Amino acid sequence: MTTARTAPSTARQMKTDKSPPPQASLIVKGSDATGIVAAITSVLSERAANILSLDQYSDRSHNGTFFQRAVFEMNGLSAALPGIRTALDDLAQTYSLGYTLRDMSVPKRVAIFASKSDHCLLDLLWRHRQGQLPVSIAMVISNHPDTAEEVRGFGIPFFHVPSMGPAKLAAETEHLRLLKDNVDFIVLARYMQILSGEYIERIGVPIINIHHSFLPAFIGAGPYAKAKERGVKLVGATAHYVTDELDEGPIIEQDVVRVTHADTAAELARRGADVERAVLSRAVLWHAEDRVIRHGNQTIVFA
Amino acid sequence: MTTARTAPSTARQMKTDKSPPPQASLIVKGSDATGIVAAITSVLSERAANILSLDQYSDRSHNGTFFQRAVFEMNGLSAALPGIRTALDDLAQTYSLGYTLRDMSVPKRVAIFASKSDHCLLDLLWRHRQGQLPVSIAMVISNHPDTAEEVRGFGIPFFHVPSMGPAKLAAETEHLRLLKDNVDFIVLARYMQILSGEYIERIGVPIINIHHSFLPAFIGAGPYAKAKERGVKLVGATAHYVTDELDEGPIIEQDVVRVTHADTAAELARRGADVERAVLSRAVLWHAEDRVIRHGNQTIVFA
Amino acid sequence: MTTARTAPSTARQMKTDKSPPPQASLIVKGSDATGIVAAITSVLSERAANILSLDQYSDRSHNGTFFQRAVFEMNGLSAALPGIRTALDDLAQTYSLGYTLRDMSVPKRVAIFASKSDHCLLDLLWRHRQGQLPVSIAMVISNHPDTAEEVRGFGIPFFHVPSMGPAKLAAETEHLRLLKDNVDFIVLARYMQILSGEYIERIGVPIINIHHSFLPAFIGAGPYAKAKERGVKLVGATAHYVTDELDEGPIIEQDVVRVTHADTAAELARRGADVERAVLSRAVLWHAEDRVIRHGNQTIVFA
Amino acid sequence: MTTARTAPSTARQMKTDKSPPPQASLIVKGSDATGIVAAITSVLSERAANILSLDQYSDRSHNGTFFQRAVFEMNGLSAALPGIRTALDDLAQTYSLGYTLRDMSVPKRVAIFASKSDHCLLDLLWRHRQGQLPVSIAMVISNHPDTAEEVRGFGIPFFHVPSMGPAKLAAETEHLRLLKDNVDFIVLARYMQILSGEYIERIGVPIINIHHSFLPAFIGAGPYAKAKERGVKLVGATAHYVTDELDEGPIIEQDVVRVTHADTAAELARRGADVERAVLSRAVLWHAEDRVIRHGNQTIVFA
Repeated sequence: MTTARTAPSTARQMKTDKSPPPQASLIVKGSDATGIVAAITSVLSERAANILSLDQYSDRSHNGTFFQRAVFEMNGLSAALPGIRTALDDLAQTYSLGYTLRDMSVPKRVAIFASKSDHCLLDLLWRHRQGQLPVSIAMVISNHPDTAEEVRGFGIPFFHVPSMGPAKLAAETEHLRLLKDNVDFIVLARYMQILSGEYIERIGVPIINIHHSFLPAFIGAGPYAKAKERGVKLVGATAHYVTDELDEGPIIEQDVVRVTHADTAAELARRGADVERAVLSRAVLWHAEDRVIRHGNQTIVFA
Repeated sequence: MTTARTAPSTARQMKTDKSPPPQASLIVKGSDATGIVAAITSVLSERAANILSLDQYSDRSHNGTFFQRAVFEMNGLSAALPGIRTALDDLAQTYSLGYTLRDMSVPKRVAIFASKSDHCLLDLLWRHRQGQLPVSIAMVISNHPDTAEEVRGFGIPFFHVPSMGPAKLAAETEHLRLLKDNVDFIVLARYMQILSGEYIERIGVPIINIHHSFLPAFIGAGPYAKAKERGVKLVGATAHYVTDELDEGPIIEQDVVRVTHADTAAELARRGADVERAVLSRAVLWHAEDRVIRHGNQTIVFA
Repeated sequence: MTTARTAPSTARQMKTDKSPPPQASLIVKGSDATGIVAAITSVLSERAANILSLDQYSDRSHNGTFFQRAVFEMNGLSAALPGIRTALDDLAQTYSLGYTLRDMSVPKRVAIFASKSDHCLLDLLWRHRQGQLPVSIAMVISNHPDTAEEVRGFGIPFFHVPSMGPAKLAAETEHLRLLKDNVDFIVLARYMQILSGEYIERIGVPIINIHHSFLPAFIGAGPYAKAKERGVKLVGATAHYVTDELDEGPIIEQDVVRVTHADTAAELARRGADVERAVLSRAVLWHAEDRVIRHGNQTIVFA
Repeated sequence: MTTARTAPSTARQMKTDKSPPPQASLIVKGSDATGIVAAITSVLSERAANILSLDQYSDRSHNGTFFQRAVFEMNGLSAALPGIRTALDDLAQTYSLGYTLRDMSVPKRVAIFASKSDHCLLDLLWRHRQGQLPVSIAMVISNHPDTAEEVRGFGIPFFHVPSMGPAKLAAETEHLRLLKDNVDFIVLARYMQILSGEYIERIGVPIINIHHSFLPAFIGAGPYAKAKERGVKLVGATAHYVTDELDEGPIIEQDVVRVTHADTAAELARRGADVERAVLSRAVLWHAEDRVIRHGNQTIVFA
């Protein structure tokens, strides 16, 4: 099994002086078998595509599932992609593999959902403006109007969609109207509303959420007050994909920060917020760069 | 409210060249009120005791509970202690305080309980030999004979007390016989037996335990396998005082280490073991130096 | 010796529901002697001031220097301060101590200096707006106009003072005019100009700087490129007070982040920037709350 | 460019239930070119070798140097190795590559050098006994007899070779006699003697060293005292390959731990020792598993 770490992605590419050939990412997943790597890489090298990075991981605990992420560059990429797809379709049938091939010069489109607190939202907007997040932020949707001015100051459309009580159903309908065909994934940047299972299904794109985490966990409302009562010494945050089961989806990234008995529950929450924005930013970057592969309730992260 | 960090304790004192006056620790706990600090420190300064460190914390969320740790040095300490006690008894009555006063030149006596795995046990024995743990290790008790030779190599008595099935009741009786009046606290260094509530009560000294921790927690058997299934990115450990409620006692210290999808469940356990030994060593040091004050289900740690 | 950690400072106080009495901080520094703590705390308790936190540290390696930070609250604080000062002046003479006493309800006034990069600047402005930094930001001065609009969006005055080549002397004069009597300290938030020794002296208020740090250090220009050449595995940042000796002043706070061979020099710089903003924010908070005591070329940080 | 993380190496293999086929590691280094990955992996797949992990990194800042680590398993490995070598020799000529191919079922042989302090030495011996270090420890050589009994307690040969003053030259001769043809690499586990350039050359195997590190660095004797004077907030350690230039060789791994003003220089040293043993253990493990590729004065670490 193998993990890996690739650098020359869209975001980082921006820094280089002269424009290199366009890049594509290829994610492959399937049953492990001898010869897969050679077969896949031959498809690329026969077309003079230069592999910039290749990360492989074989999970032996699951009967040998094979995961691979390759990033390659080639002149005339868009013209070549259909031919590569045809060759990969053949391989996919031979080896029972699934794959996704993506032109990385076209950034993924994302909608950010927020509520009142702005720490995660602003960090994403600021990093995007810095050229650190290779995404196109299509819109920010919030159930509160508080952050409207700030978001628009970054040149991003802001939509206020109230969702309290009876408005909730109408809100979901409005969301779907706004999002339809406009986004490739959604980020819940401290969006304090529960999404219905039906809604998640209808949206049809990956949703990334961030929430506080402790050792041990404190379930339900007022987690920081509970953590304070127990005298925890670390508070943390987890970024994960949203599934039907609330806060139980595949984990993308986690981190913690040290606290002491002298920190009030409010202080714990403030320090937790610092971790949340850092963890969410990393998760969004990795998703944007095709570094995260979902597999059951876990993730393979080639970061 | 205040925390603090004091250094010139027994362990660290060993390093200094010429012998300074003996030291004592004074822990005070009670309802907060104006003038407490001045009253307590006056008791010491009137007797020419030199305060080396003073740490105060007032927990305002609990109606103002006051916590203080002072370390002071004075020539003729043992002769002076009874007089200090008398003066403190008066203060304690006036302000409704509780206190403990301890001659730090007499190290606390500890029994270490272990089972088969030796990572926590050996780290404690090695640090003790290095002069890093200001305790007297009275004995090691294990339900397995595996570590006997190693423990005795450190010059520490080792007692093998099997505790499987019907032997469990006999084992507890044997423990109590060995421990009675011989130890000031107990450390469970990966001791894989559950202690009965009655047993905990009869032992009558603080018990420190170490166990694995995750974000989020995974309850029950096989936690590393469950953590692997969920794809956690951090594994950790928690050192806590043992109470009736299994693994729910006041937390002394916690830490984590980063893992990836490429780590097997066995790897997670190995990395978890590294964190366990580090966290347990810190918790034992702090307990030995009177840096930990229990308060309900939390701790004040002046570390 | 003792460190400590106090919580109920201006910033954190803002969260509590009903207004408590005003608070003051008292910093004392001098030769250690028996009875100092009792003498100082008696001055406060005789006036019914309630000590919320008390942190003491005695540095035995320097012939016993004594450091103490106390935070107390009392009704009628401003009226009582002159009397407290008189009493402390007596103590200061008796024990050869120095002290500073400050009404914490009056936030310190700060000027932030910046250049082109905005990561440290924006983090400070955002935390200030969130109520996390108990300071009054009097102005932002920059040698580049790039961040003007953003700064003014936070409602903070922005002054563009070019300082290239011959403009440098004029710039320093202009700075002094703007700052005179208006600020209590200065923060260099990635201000890419060297301050002359004469200038530092004439400004007469503490200056906090942030700069990149590595293990080991790489001196001079292009440090990230050099760090990349050497293959460092950690990049970090140091916040320190500015002295005549460039980047050699007393350290307030440091931190690091892990990097790998796959990170380009640009990536190292980006990750370094994340650490810089975190470290600088902590240093500014601690300075604002009187938690940092300078002592020769080191600091005592009661954080 | 790509890094990666491979798991199923010798050490970790020990945990699996039934014996899998033997494994080999293949490290390739050279100028980057289209088709290399496909060419190399084809050599393996044509012989029905199953690639368990593959990690690639292309360093674009150095004119495209290509680094690859593959671990594969196959039945009849030893019989197949000569044929694989022949095929790789052809590829190496075509693409101007260098490579090393190693049967991982034969652990590398190591000599550990130590002096008086035992924290790094014992951690290595203990991890080896736990099955966590896939090496064969051929001998421990020390210029002090202090740790002899302990080392022999682990069943490892111990040689006392004094090296003070005039004995130094004789010591080097004695070392060479002991080491000749017996070891594949050397670990300096706090060995407090400087090795001459001539000696390093004659030994002819990689040498791994561990030393303290700070932000910033403190050169020369008494670094912890200097760090204390400057008031550093982090102390760390660096594991690196030994070259002619003292402590300037390629870095394998680094880490730090947080300290405060309350820590004495002795305390800094103690905490530094904890980091040293952790960092050195990781560096030795990675070297043992062929995860570290030297490249000029840096390292590619596929960990």
